[in-house]
Amino acid sequence: MKTEQMREKDLRIRIADAVDAARNANPLIGSVTNAVSVNLVANAQLAVGGSAAVVYLEEEGESLIRSGGAFYINMGTLLPIHRRTLPYLAEISHREDRPWVLDPVAAGLGSLRNDLLVRFKEYKPDVIRGNASEIIALASIWGLEGGGPASNVRGVDSTESVLEAKDAAVSLAKWTGGAVSVSGETDLVTDGSAVAISYGGSPFFERITGAGCSLGGVTAVYAAVSEPFIAALTATAIYNLAGSRAGRKADTPGRFQTEFLDELYRTSSADVADNPFDLEVME
Amino acid sequence: MKTEQMREKDLRIRIADAVDAARNANPLIGSVTNAVSVNLVANAQLAVGGSAAVVYLEEEGESLIRSGGAFYINMGTLLPIHRRTLPYLAEISHREDRPWVLDPVAAGLGSLRNDLLVRFKEYKPDVIRGNASEIIALASIWGLEGGGPASNVRGVDSTESVLEAKDAAVSLAKWTGGAVSVSGETDLVTDGSAVAISYGGSPFFERITGAGCSLGGVTAVYAAVSEPFIAALTATAIYNLAGSRAGRKADTPGRFQTEFLDELYRTSSADVADNPFDLEVME
Amino acid sequence: MKTEQMREKDLRIRIADAVDAARNANPLIGSVTNAVSVNLVANAQLAVGGSAAVVYLEEEGESLIRSGGAFYINMGTLLPIHRRTLPYLAEISHREDRPWVLDPVAAGLGSLRNDLLVRFKEYKPDVIRGNASEIIALASIWGLEGGGPASNVRGVDSTESVLEAKDAAVSLAKWTGGAVSVSGETDLVTDGSAVAISYGGSPFFERITGAGCSLGGVTAVYAAVSEPFIAALTATAIYNLAGSRAGRKADTPGRFQTEFLDELYRTSSADVADNPFDLEVME
Repeated sequence: MKTEQMREKDLRIRIADAVDAARNANPLIGSVTNAVSVNLVANAQLAVGGSAAVVYLEEEGESLIRSGGAFYINMGTLLPIHRRTLPYLAEISHREDRPWVLDPVAAGLGSLRNDLLVRFKEYKPDVIRGNASEIIALASIWGLEGGGPASNVRGVDSTESVLEAKDAAVSLAKWTGGAVSVSGETDLVTDGSAVAISYGGSPFFERITGAGCSLGGVTAVYAAVSEPFIAALTATAIYNLAGSRAGRKADTPGRFQTEFLDELYRTSSADVADNPFDLEVME
Repeated sequence: MKTEQMREKDLRIRIADAVDAARNANPLIGSVTNAVSVNLVANAQLAVGGSAAVVYLEEEGESLIRSGGAFYINMGTLLPIHRRTLPYLAEISHREDRPWVLDPVAAGLGSLRNDLLVRFKEYKPDVIRGNASEIIALASIWGLEGGGPASNVRGVDSTESVLEAKDAAVSLAKWTGGAVSVSGETDLVTDGSAVAISYGGSPFFERITGAGCSLGGVTAVYAAVSEPFIAALTATAIYNLAGSRAGRKADTPGRFQTEFLDELYRTSSADVADNPFDLEVME
Repeated sequence: MKTEQMREKDLRIRIADAVDAARNANPLIGSVTNAVSVNLVANAQLAVGGSAAVVYLEEEGESLIRSGGAFYINMGTLLPIHRRTLPYLAEISHREDRPWVLDPVAAGLGSLRNDLLVRFKEYKPDVIRGNASEIIALASIWGLEGGGPASNVRGVDSTESVLEAKDAAVSLAKWTGGAVSVSGETDLVTDGSAVAISYGGSPFFERITGAGCSLGGVTAVYAAVSEPFIAALTATAIYNLAGSRAGRKADTPGRFQTEFLDELYRTSSADVADNPFDLEVME
């Protein structure tokens, strides 16, 4: 117990450091992301201190990976070119030991998506961020414990609760050696040995498009300046805090989106570090 | 006359039901839509209670059609892949008897667009939504009464008034057996035998991008929970009401867009049903 | 000196005329632009009085060039199809003597981008708008004075100051016979013989995505109603003025974006003409 308290205190210090480091270092984050929420992804990355560059072509992505701080792959709206670009950029990131974040949007929808997810297994994303259904589907696609039928995926929505995805998240994190974050009413973040449950957010995250996608993009900003578990925890904490604050100011989706972006921008690192989470350290 | 009053009263009840049903059922709407306004389309669909999933690939669209509530095809920014995807998804929707909504954006611009529109004729969209020029051009492309030269199309803008498109709208609706809605200063919605003129809206619909496209997307949400004519009427009514209300709060386009989305979200079903329209029932 | 004062006074009259002409003529601007900021580009074009149509296909772009007021090519997020579309549309614009505006986003990133920029040289864009690094890289790619290694390009950000790009801007403008505008903390606009330094704007231009891209799009609106140097000056002035005003109302990026769009819409032509700039006329 003592250890867990020390661990938690240490994590909070490192969360604050990550928030500050992103604002100071302005890391360049390359992304392949979806057409629906690409603008929010980029603006959220900018709001927390990053710089955003979005590409479709292999060569351009490679150049960004080599010069940038981290890379973000979001599978939302697949085009034929993604069949080549995505595995290539995942491989480069892995081979060059550059951090990359995967958002397995709608895992379970369609064979191209499935093929790509299969291939990502060996390129071990530093952070995987998804909703419960996507995390469970991905664990299943990778043949890991906690996986379940992808048939529960309903478009981009989750049909399962975050806690149901705990085993899948832990086994994915153990496989990659990185971190996994599962988004929902409360959020779960794990590095395979510790599990944090992060509180806050807003029901409006479900009533605007791109809350999850932009959380993945912001996770990549923090992955450029901290290790995977801290990056995932920090991004989840700032989303939960900014989401709660925006939700207190806005009771409609349009206004919420503006307030949320503004809270991402102005929230202090100390407040992000103080955002409530529970920590469970496994054996 | 008596009959028309009863008919109108009945329509208002069913409009209110459609608004409530969308909020309760949260229907999943798959879309192929354009790059410019895709974010607004998805956010508007969410604001009225739907769930939004956007795709480019045939197989993914098919999967959404089979599991979802309705499909939306907006032809705004065509890519080469749309040559395959669009007719395929229109055909699947038609064959599987799933509702689909067509927005023939910029009908008359380019040969791919024309070829696609020709092919859609046999797949009979449940609702067609466009501006006057697009509706007139589509009737012409399909060889129906009321059609006129597509050469009047000016990019994505209409050069004709809504009433000039009445004959085209009626003949399109008769052909599809569904509904057609024509957007403009006032809006016209027809199922081929009744014609409703819906009032409200805002001049800012012309000064922001995507008002028409997102109306098409919202029509698809209602098409998942009601018959075509009601879906088209309901979407038009909620747009006209939310547009008027937003226009009273905002006199600039940025603020208008936020207010409009917020009004879509909070407008009551009773108020939508009360939004003024005139009904003309033809022989 | 006298001459420069007369020249400046004349420019201010023509800036006011351009602002009014765009609002009155509602010119149709076709664009090929990037996925990240396409919505802001179109909304900004609408806010200043233009009409926006975005395309990917050669034939559609050609049709817009022939019927529209000006064309905008922004190289942000290249897709394979852009290899054909972009040089084709640049050539058509040039051959048909229609104004076109080039935004050489991320010049220096990747070989396709480089190949396209090489080909644009002969099609002489009427206005080139970029940040300092992009303008310097483009002058280098075209083998003109003032050019420098593209290796300084950092994603979409500039690593050089606007004044460092002065020679490159002047030599590019001399080559094209049009105008070049360099965006940064202050902005530089030149037609190859006169250099204007325009003041205003906001640090938030760097903290939202698409400020530069939409400035390019708005430049195309003015290029449809005025000559290149006036178009570039007017767009820069309205951006600087609307940016300053928005920055006085908003201290966060979400709110800034809304306020900025609103200021673009409501700013008077007289105020745009009065926005401060310094003029240097070279012999």
